[in-house]
Amino acid sequence: MTFWGIEVKPGKPFTFNAEDLSGKLILTQATLGTGSATKKSILQVNVGDKSPVYLCTLLPDKTESCSLNLEFDEDDDVKFSVVGPTSIHLSGFVQGDVEH
Amino acid sequence: MTFWGIEVKPGKPFTFNAEDLSGKLILTQATLGTGSATKKSILQVNVGDKSPVYLCTLLPDKTESCSLNLEFDEDDDVKFSVVGPTSIHLSGFVQGDVEH
Amino acid sequence: MTFWGIEVKPGKPFTFNAEDLSGKLILTQATLGTGSATKKSILQVNVGDKSPVYLCTLLPDKTESCSLNLEFDEDDDVKFSVVGPTSIHLSGFVQGDVEH
Amino acid sequence: MTFWGIEVKPGKPFTFNAEDLSGKLILTQATLGTGSATKKSILQVNVGDKSPVYLCTLLPDKTESCSLNLEFDEDDDVKFSVVGPTSIHLSGFVQGDVEH
Amino acid sequence: MTFWGIEVKPGKPFTFNAEDLSGKLILTQATLGTGSATKKSILQVNVGDKSPVYLCTLLPDKTESCSLNLEFDEDDDVKFSVVGPTSIHLSGFVQGDVEH
Repeated sequence: MTFWGIEVKPGKPFTFNAEDLSGKLILTQATLGTGSATKKSILQVNVGDKSPVYLCTLLPDKTESCSLNLEFDEDDDVKFSVVGPTSIHLSGFVQGDVEH
Repeated sequence: MTFWGIEVKPGKPFTFNAEDLSGKLILTQATLGTGSATKKSILQVNVGDKSPVYLCTLLPDKTESCSLNLEFDEDDDVKFSVVGPTSIHLSGFVQGDVEH
Repeated sequence: MTFWGIEVKPGKPFTFNAEDLSGKLILTQATLGTGSATKKSILQVNVGDKSPVYLCTLLPDKTESCSLNLEFDEDDDVKFSVVGPTSIHLSGFVQGDVEH
Repeated sequence: MTFWGIEVKPGKPFTFNAEDLSGKLILTQATLGTGSATKKSILQVNVGDKSPVYLCTLLPDKTESCSLNLEFDEDDDVKFSVVGPTSIHLSGFVQGDVEH
Repeated sequence: MTFWGIEVKPGKPFTFNAEDLSGKLILTQATLGTGSATKKSILQVNVGDKSPVYLCTLLPDKTESCSLNLEFDEDDDVKFSVVGPTSIHLSGFVQGDVEH
């Protein structure tokens, strides 16, 4: 079990593959980054070539953190991106020794 | 374990069956789609011929995401639909190799 | 694993027993029903002859859904009831083949 | 697995020990009691002789319920108490047959 | 399984290592401490020499508690710190007998 955390910035998607992580990613938290924007920021994910799916929406000064419970163990690439003005910090952990 | 995500639009229910997924659906998140409506949107489910049950309510600009922890492993059909003006993105994962 | 969902209406408690369900009830979500009341509605439970315990409070137009993580595997009767003007939809799943 | 629920009132801490429960307490929910106070109420815990730790804060008419995921399996005494004007209902379940 | 709880104060990071705990830390809750500040406080973590990751944001009088689901079983040092004016209480439990 290893902690996993990144900051996804607007316009700079983060793409990874389960093999990069040598295990299954368990994503459990999203938190709004620093910034003065008042508009919402949405975390979305593209898995392989499927259309994007919204995972959560963070609202400045109202809802700036959100629990998640998502597992990524795909052969496909997984791309996290932000729709909105502010970065989103993602955290969770990688569960190792998982047969692919 | 495979990521599962869809967008359910008002007036366009999404129906599936565990056999379509070759596994158990674990639904863990609902997030409001894009739109300018200010009224709430409710996610509801019909399992087989039973009456609908509300699963969560999303309020524009207040509560736009909601954690869920629901498992669907039914022989019956499962129908997700939206009551309200805005689509709802659902996400979770499919736990494979489950005997029916 | 089978989906479980009901609507508990004010003044109409819902009583059940684990034996009715042939398994353990895992209650994971509560969502406010339809109505125009602005006052809060509280979900409470009585197990056997013990005094009632509040499980969650839903506030119209503020907090209309709530995650839960409660397991009911009792020999006693379990009674859900609503304190307030609006019904509450409960959902979760029944984990079968559990020795009593 | 047995349901566990209590109401902790201001000025009346609730102290227990895992041996009283013949199992591990899994605390999963806190809900504000009845009252007209507008100030927040904080649930805190003392384990043995350690200093108190805040577990959650409930805000009347804003956030009146809170999910928790805490396990108590201590040899020490565990004391729940409320800082604030309104009682807090706690619920969860006791997982029996756990070797101490 | 043992309860784990601390208060992280602004300017006073808390650093630990899994070996200090003789087990895996499962962090499940963060709650705002006492204070009159109206600005938000952010909980962040540094694992080893990696850059900080925000874990949650607490907003006085709006969102003063937050569920978490993070596991720390690292060989590296883990440092929790607060960005903002108010302390944050962290709670969870230590799962012992985990091979490193």
